[in-house]
Amino acid sequence: MTRTIVASATREIIIGFDQPFCVIGERINPTGRKKLAAEMVEGNFDTVIKDALEQVAAGATMLDVNAGVTSVNPNETEPGLLVQTLQIVQDLVDVPLSIDSSVSAAIEAALKVAKGRPLVNSVTGEEEKLEAILPLIKKYNVPVVAISNDETGISMDPDVRFAVAKKIVERCADFGIPAYDIVVDPLVMPIGALGDAGRQVFALLRRLREELKVNTTCGLSNVSFGLPHRHGINAGFIPMVIGAGMTSAIMNPCRPQEMEAVRAANVLNGTDANCTNWIKTYKDYQPHVAGSAPTPNPAVSSAEGGRRRGGRAARSGGA
Amino acid sequence: MTRTIVASATREIIIGFDQPFCVIGERINPTGRKKLAAEMVEGNFDTVIKDALEQVAAGATMLDVNAGVTSVNPNETEPGLLVQTLQIVQDLVDVPLSIDSSVSAAIEAALKVAKGRPLVNSVTGEEEKLEAILPLIKKYNVPVVAISNDETGISMDPDVRFAVAKKIVERCADFGIPAYDIVVDPLVMPIGALGDAGRQVFALLRRLREELKVNTTCGLSNVSFGLPHRHGINAGFIPMVIGAGMTSAIMNPCRPQEMEAVRAANVLNGTDANCTNWIKTYKDYQPHVAGSAPTPNPAVSSAEGGRRRGGRAARSGGA
Repeated sequence: MTRTIVASATREIIIGFDQPFCVIGERINPTGRKKLAAEMVEGNFDTVIKDALEQVAAGATMLDVNAGVTSVNPNETEPGLLVQTLQIVQDLVDVPLSIDSSVSAAIEAALKVAKGRPLVNSVTGEEEKLEAILPLIKKYNVPVVAISNDETGISMDPDVRFAVAKKIVERCADFGIPAYDIVVDPLVMPIGALGDAGRQVFALLRRLREELKVNTTCGLSNVSFGLPHRHGINAGFIPMVIGAGMTSAIMNPCRPQEMEAVRAANVLNGTDANCTNWIKTYKDYQPHVAGSAPTPNPAVSSAEGGRRRGGRAARSGGA
Repeated sequence: MTRTIVASATREIIIGFDQPFCVIGERINPTGRKKLAAEMVEGNFDTVIKDALEQVAAGATMLDVNAGVTSVNPNETEPGLLVQTLQIVQDLVDVPLSIDSSVSAAIEAALKVAKGRPLVNSVTGEEEKLEAILPLIKKYNVPVVAISNDETGISMDPDVRFAVAKKIVERCADFGIPAYDIVVDPLVMPIGALGDAGRQVFALLRRLREELKVNTTCGLSNVSFGLPHRHGINAGFIPMVIGAGMTSAIMNPCRPQEMEAVRAANVLNGTDANCTNWIKTYKDYQPHVAGSAPTPNPAVSSAEGGRRRGGRAARSGGA
């Protein structure tokens, strides 16, 4: 059974087909958030702290941490800022983190200070990327998100995207990185632009699971780009990708409708044993008061998203 | 491609893998509705009429019609009452109907007066049932719901349920009834009682589609029996069964959260071309006003649920 182990200093999570869906909180990311970018440049981490706490309270299994405040000279600014952001977040919350950067030097700097076993987000099939990132993955013995595009860009042909994922898995093997430490992002297209985007991804997820035996992730909300009532599309997409074998997603856990879909799909996929998390979260549900989903009980949320096992001894189960 | 054709006097619907999910409105059914049963016995069809209109306005593709008001002497009372109910409903709305009875004489009486091409609900793998119902299916050239239980009851083993479905399909073939006129109900267990119920059904749906090449249906809300916030579980289940290949369900279309899940899954499954129905339904969506989903625009709803084709000439596409 494919198991990707991620950990904070005190908490370990397994990403796997038999595990609750891993919700990777996407909020700590200045891309497209000018105000947050300006704050971070000024050394103001108030929004980062707020986003970290809110996402964990809302049920995030992990948090993605990105400090890409500028496209100008990111090689100079990003390593220091990513380290600073990561340290603030890992001292604040106990969920595992994902180190998210397109700057290899920033990833390495963050790996040097990260506690536990973070996920690296990401490598692609681009030769330069593979050569820069895979040695770090091996050296620090951490799992990595593998995005299925290469020098030619993102192919509209899902067979090409599968081939790129396969190439990355093979290159990882050359570096001694096992498939269970690779989390493939098959790339989700907007359904409003490409009517076949959903079926493409469902078919890709099955192949990635059955042929490459890897865990999978995606930037979930991309599927609804451009459509009205995006939360409704996202909330329908989540059970479908979980049913097709996706094991994690980078998404906003502060959206009740999406998190309700995750919890329902966990029940239906048999990864919420005895419906315990569902019942605790929704036992007092009052639709006319709360809308489509209540704000979760933090005491419940902190226990969801993974059958957490104490300490690192359990790591041996990671294959 | 498997296509099950159902029709009212004026409207034809295709149930199929490449079609929008077929929502069979479940409300016109006195089982467990004492007040409705009492009304129908008295010849008062006000609630039947209200339920028919509301379900069609809410987006039902078809309506199920059941007149089982009593378990005492149903053979005497049900044929007349089912005919009366069916005639009222088919004169009121233009969607195709499903004739729902456990009394074979009632099904035959209803078939004699039904306009268009109704669905018969249902036959099982019980020998007596097969002998009573299949000749009617052949004689009236209508499709039938095949429920995968037999004399031994409902098996907890999905392989047994598949075997029962296969037996019914084979018996149908003996009668000259093609697989595309059989809509198999694999039977959905409550997930709260059987944690594997979801995965069982997803696996069964794939086998029914790939091996028997039949359309499928289920009593959808059974999956959430006994759990809090059942609409949330149902709304997660719908995209998962659609992703696994289910093509229809007997459900309550007057529940906005469930219907939103159907519409989102149609978008993601590529059966809402250009997201037309989604955009029309949700373009003015205001979450803070309407809750999890708006009351659909009837003008839109009446056009959803099937790529309807005028007249019966299209029937030749039914294989």
